Amino acid sequence: MNNLREIAKTSVLGNPIRFGIMLYLLPRERALFIDIQRILDITPGNLDSHLRKLKQEGYVEIKKVLVDRPRTMVKITEKGAIETRNYLEKLKSVVSSYYKS
Amino acid sequence: MNNLREIAKTSVLGNPIRFGIMLYLLPRERALFIDIQRILDITPGNLDSHLRKLKQEGYVEIKKVLVDRPRTMVKITEKGAIETRNYLEKLKSVVSSYYKS
Repeated sequence: MNNLREIAKTSVLGNPIRFGIMLYLLPRERALFIDIQRILDITPGNLDSHLRKLKQEGYVEIKKVLVDRPRTMVKITEKGAIETRNYLEKLKSVVSSYYKS
Repeated sequence: MNNLREIAKTSVLGNPIRFGIMLYLLPRERALFIDIQRILDITPGNLDSHLRKLKQEGYVEIKKVLVDRPRTMVKITEKGAIETRNYLEKLKSVVSSYYKS
């Protein structure tokens, strides 16, 4: 039951767009800003504000890289990966408890 | 991959407190306001504002009932149950895809 309380209190990953960003980064470690924006189908401004929050919380690092031209690269940090896996664990236990009931 | 996009765009259940409320109601169908508030450890005002959003979206019904004294009872609607199960399905597929990778 405390899983419900913890899920309800999840502030950083509790936001669905931030959760989507971290889920996209988790298996890839890094991705271009433009790719995340296309996959989640959100505006650049919206993605930028959520990335700033994730960076402020230490979940991602943001760098400029030269690809075809200067691009923004987003890299998941160790803390970001740990927090995302922990949240997935909580969701997994809550989800599986519903498929048993 | 479109699961990621759908999760990112989940507005009603995308909020962790509303998700916690619906997860609590799903196996019970109904619960007292005071019980939901204690389980999720949130303020009455916070719970009230999220319940109003859930009611506005047709996910719950809110009634006064006489228990020891007049109490607020929250009941999940069919739509609320369907939407919560659908969201759980999406989370389940995203979560299981991470435990396979």
